[in-house]
Amino acid sequence: MKLDSLAIKYDNGLLWVLDQQALPQQEIWLECHSIDDMCAMIKALKVRGAPLIGIAALLALMQYVTKGATIEEIKIAIKQLVATRPTAVNLKNYMQVLLNQLTTNVEVVFEIGQKFFLEDITLCENMATLGAELIPPGANLMTCCNTGGLATAGSGTALAVIKKAFQQQKVKHVFPCETRPLLQGGRLTAWELEKANIPYTLICDNMAAMVMAQGKVDAILVGADRIAANGDIANKIGTYSLAVLARFHQIPFYVVAPYTTLDSTCASGRDIVIEIRDPNEVRGALGKLSWTPEQTQVYNPSFDVTPAELITNYILDTGIFNPASIHLAINESRTIEKLSI
Amino acid sequence: MKLDSLAIKYDNGLLWVLDQQALPQQEIWLECHSIDDMCAMIKALKVRGAPLIGIAALLALMQYVTKGATIEEIKIAIKQLVATRPTAVNLKNYMQVLLNQLTTNVEVVFEIGQKFFLEDITLCENMATLGAELIPPGANLMTCCNTGGLATAGSGTALAVIKKAFQQQKVKHVFPCETRPLLQGGRLTAWELEKANIPYTLICDNMAAMVMAQGKVDAILVGADRIAANGDIANKIGTYSLAVLARFHQIPFYVVAPYTTLDSTCASGRDIVIEIRDPNEVRGALGKLSWTPEQTQVYNPSFDVTPAELITNYILDTGIFNPASIHLAINESRTIEKLSI
Repeated sequence: MKLDSLAIKYDNGLLWVLDQQALPQQEIWLECHSIDDMCAMIKALKVRGAPLIGIAALLALMQYVTKGATIEEIKIAIKQLVATRPTAVNLKNYMQVLLNQLTTNVEVVFEIGQKFFLEDITLCENMATLGAELIPPGANLMTCCNTGGLATAGSGTALAVIKKAFQQQKVKHVFPCETRPLLQGGRLTAWELEKANIPYTLICDNMAAMVMAQGKVDAILVGADRIAANGDIANKIGTYSLAVLARFHQIPFYVVAPYTTLDSTCASGRDIVIEIRDPNEVRGALGKLSWTPEQTQVYNPSFDVTPAELITNYILDTGIFNPASIHLAINESRTIEKLSI
Repeated sequence: MKLDSLAIKYDNGLLWVLDQQALPQQEIWLECHSIDDMCAMIKALKVRGAPLIGIAALLALMQYVTKGATIEEIKIAIKQLVATRPTAVNLKNYMQVLLNQLTTNVEVVFEIGQKFFLEDITLCENMATLGAELIPPGANLMTCCNTGGLATAGSGTALAVIKKAFQQQKVKHVFPCETRPLLQGGRLTAWELEKANIPYTLICDNMAAMVMAQGKVDAILVGADRIAANGDIANKIGTYSLAVLARFHQIPFYVVAPYTTLDSTCASGRDIVIEIRDPNEVRGALGKLSWTPEQTQVYNPSFDVTPAELITNYILDTGIFNPASIHLAINESRTIEKLSI
């Protein structure tokens, strides 16, 4: 079996990941040989993006099966993979579906892996099509983190909407926020926008408010790592800040995510576990430069929670929702089982 | 004549500047030999902080006089110094006062230089004392950029208030924002807080909203590079963002600045020229690391404008004002003449 996306490739038991920590300076494909390899790559954000880490985990399990893993070994590997990053729910969702179907035959790993990989491409396309309808002609758009082809098996979430609207000639300019501390906006989104020939101007996160006040932003689009039952979302740190600033400046704030991001078992944002990462990420940049006093105490939450009331619309693959209707999407979410992982 | 502060030293014609681009990793004192030297140092932010660049310009002119500069040469040097950075008004204010008194005797440069250097120490002390009265016991405070002893000849503006309140045992914790792109918060404020043994936690700029939402911030204190006649202020990029977030979270937002920051000739924030700096500052960090695609277009305003209505109080050396009363401070501002530079 062969599966191929912008940032991950699977070919009959061989598995490669595009190193997203090396981008955009270097395009390095890292070979993954084991579950341990994949766990390390996910933790180090070499593979990242809520949908993609779920897919990457599935592909690593497929590889594990080709190496002769038993059902028991796969169950242990699933636990190990789920533990890599606590906030994004897509990974947990995929692993739960797999676990529920993993009874007698390891071949189910291939079925599910291929199914979700191919499905993710369709989900992205659906989100892009639905979302682009909300973008007015001549739009100036703002986004943060990276939510494009590097974050999914398909064209992306928020960035896929931007690309689709650009293809429809409705996008005038994009302002990606650089997204400290790991600079996914400055590195990855800039790289994707450049590749797509979309006019953009990179800004530091603390410039977003000024750009909004200048009237240069018609809509803000972000992804999500988890959508709780009440519509609160967890997403990359800085998302909540943009949502508050959007409200103040009366700018529509759109959350773009596939149904795999919905978590009906999580009542509200308060129940979402927020991953706290290595202090050195804030003390410098990309493990290559430090600028603070050596032992500076830092706070490094990888995500923040945006309450539903600050969200204009949720652009899901299944349709456009708002804070009053998002419970319908959550109740109807297709394949996701109750999480027990 | 000998004048000595945390970041600048003058000794009978010899002049040294503490390199604020090398801090906190290295404490390097750079010798300044000429007006050209000082202009380069100000442009490169080796010496920085609205009050301090005004003082630094005066000391460079004093040195110039010891080297035999004539009145005409000093007038040319004043123009050159004023042109280094367009936004902060303290520099312009000092230069205008000097220009107005520079008639027949170059010795007036020493009088005015010494006067403003010593006065700045008193201004800082006054702001600190007045501002600390606004800080409740057990306060958690947030600030951005660097507004301490490195930014003035004295103890600072916003950071001096924090230090004074800490001495009065009213400060529980401080959250400095790192302040991209030049990281004055992560480098300089962290360094000063560390030296002062004040408990602090450094955050990236995009984390400020989350920390506010967690109820961890009782007040936000910032400096100012210019206060317009209507009370709008220009300050380090990111200040406006904090002001909007403060309003949303109902947190008092204080601007701390000496009277030399007032600009009665500037009607409103719209009239303040905002310095746009080198794109490479946003493309990486501190000239040592780049992470964006090579030619990424960026926006790099060094300052933003915060409208008066978002400011709870102005803590000036002359008293505490609010948006309704700030015009009194501006009308009464002591020595500042109409700017013609």
